[in-house]
Amino acid sequence: MADYDIFELGNVVLQSGATLRGAKLAYKTYGRLNASKDNAIVYPTWYSGQHTENEWLIGPGMALDPEKYFILVPNMFGNGLSSSPSNTPPPWDRARFPGVTVHDNVACQYRLVTEKWGIERLRLVVGWSMGAQQTFEWGAAYPQMVERIAPFCGSARTSRHNFVFLEGVKAALTADDAFQGGWYERQPTKGLRAMARVYAGWGFSRTFYRERLDIEGMGFASLEDFLVGFWEGLFLPRDANNLLAMLWTWQHADISANPRYGGNFEMALGAITARALVMPGQTDLYFPPEDSEYEVAHMPDAELRPIPSIWGHCAGGPGVNPADVKFIDEALKALLQS
Amino acid sequence: MADYDIFELGNVVLQSGATLRGAKLAYKTYGRLNASKDNAIVYPTWYSGQHTENEWLIGPGMALDPEKYFILVPNMFGNGLSSSPSNTPPPWDRARFPGVTVHDNVACQYRLVTEKWGIERLRLVVGWSMGAQQTFEWGAAYPQMVERIAPFCGSARTSRHNFVFLEGVKAALTADDAFQGGWYERQPTKGLRAMARVYAGWGFSRTFYRERLDIEGMGFASLEDFLVGFWEGLFLPRDANNLLAMLWTWQHADISANPRYGGNFEMALGAITARALVMPGQTDLYFPPEDSEYEVAHMPDAELRPIPSIWGHCAGGPGVNPADVKFIDEALKALLQS
Repeated sequence: MADYDIFELGNVVLQSGATLRGAKLAYKTYGRLNASKDNAIVYPTWYSGQHTENEWLIGPGMALDPEKYFILVPNMFGNGLSSSPSNTPPPWDRARFPGVTVHDNVACQYRLVTEKWGIERLRLVVGWSMGAQQTFEWGAAYPQMVERIAPFCGSARTSRHNFVFLEGVKAALTADDAFQGGWYERQPTKGLRAMARVYAGWGFSRTFYRERLDIEGMGFASLEDFLVGFWEGLFLPRDANNLLAMLWTWQHADISANPRYGGNFEMALGAITARALVMPGQTDLYFPPEDSEYEVAHMPDAELRPIPSIWGHCAGGPGVNPADVKFIDEALKALLQS
Repeated sequence: MADYDIFELGNVVLQSGATLRGAKLAYKTYGRLNASKDNAIVYPTWYSGQHTENEWLIGPGMALDPEKYFILVPNMFGNGLSSSPSNTPPPWDRARFPGVTVHDNVACQYRLVTEKWGIERLRLVVGWSMGAQQTFEWGAAYPQMVERIAPFCGSARTSRHNFVFLEGVKAALTADDAFQGGWYERQPTKGLRAMARVYAGWGFSRTFYRERLDIEGMGFASLEDFLVGFWEGLFLPRDANNLLAMLWTWQHADISANPRYGGNFEMALGAITARALVMPGQTDLYFPPEDSEYEVAHMPDAELRPIPSIWGHCAGGPGVNPADVKFIDEALKALLQS
């Protein structure tokens, strides 16, 4: 029994020029849309994550309270539930799955929100990491619709350094001959494990490792136990082509890649009229605070509030550190009341 | 015609318990040892580097001036010139090459310096990155012999985060089936290229990439041109087992792994009586300044002087940024005059 629904998008022409035929957007909702349709929140997923992996920030008494809000979690294309290399029929399957941008994702989420429910205003868009990238995109692409955004541990455009980090992840995954250029019948597990190890150095901070939080904080028995148990365990169940599809989306994230802005990044930032609370992780190694500072400086109604955490990128999720969850949750509460 | 010499070490019993039989230490000297034998400087090599790749910091008018000093550059074991997986005869060749520590390296360098030349005091030991690790080791293992040390962009012990970064490098290299567990007849070029891409995100800083110094500073035509031309070009000519042997050395670097200190890191740091100038790169992603701060705080005669550079780890080498070379060279001049 699937715990989510599918919105049939039909044929979607993508920014890359390809068409995603019979596109499907998988989503889950929490809470009820009220009569005036003004209690909706959109909360997109992160790299490789699915809607259930967003639930650590949803709950009674939390900012994202299903008793007050109608919370919609759309699954990002490529994540295995929405249209992905692993679930798209030939000839557009696997290695032929087209490049889907963050803009494409959000345009389809917009259709879901407006066509299915007739929602005209969103109380909030919020997300972690690539979820933050989709959040920025909502603000830039549909400024009239979004009252508030809260992107955390993410950026409005993928930086060149972040792009290079991802090149390393991709190279490790595809170095495995079992990948077969994407035409594998069995997952390239050696490559998946290799990419997990590459990721491990980036996902948490230097201080996290120095203070042995893999052991003292997360309860693993040793560093190797953590590398296998947390990191390999995170990526091994995922499909390689799906991971590469989302990686492509990530590498091409740019809110100004939109005819309205013509590649002018500062203009796109300036168009985000939503009240914005931008929360980088203070020790995030690949979405560093200085990129968020630049973005906030070019947005008309934005506040920068770094998460004072030594958990690196994982200050933002997926709910691994209770103190960070509390910080984010309280910030969202205040934002929603403003 | 080789431009270096070989010091025959005989059979060397290693910290790992193995014996490096017929061990060879390749080295090159610059300048002449004076009659009182008090003008010697040791300048070990870095990860994957050979003596010629240290020469950017040697020259007339520079701190390391061959007209004044006798500069000895010992090649690290595993680098293809000193005993390495690629040049050791069976049965200790290739994947069977034993683990060699930084301590083992320096103990052999000590023999070269004392047995071959009868040198009793070193004016300076200096090095970048793993060369810095050997420099710290000289200070801790032979405190009576070393007057000054100048480790830059390196650490006295490999941090847990740095260890994890290297796990990613190793996983990418060995994910290539052509590696064949180290028993390849042809180099695993896909794995070498993958490790180069993993390395690319770590070797330079986020600001380096943000300011497009790959293009504006180093003259590459594009980011991809840089990834292939600089990074793949750096590692592709090297032997995979050699790279893994040096990576093992790096992961196990620890000046306190010495019977004298019994794993007490602070005690080992406290034993470094040499005047020390410790220069981390201000934006180094894997040998971060905070680790150097800790070390300096526990050393009796040490000064911390971060290299004010946005070139990340490559602030320290191999001579890619003239401003950084000047900063390091001037610091070394002052240190040598002190």
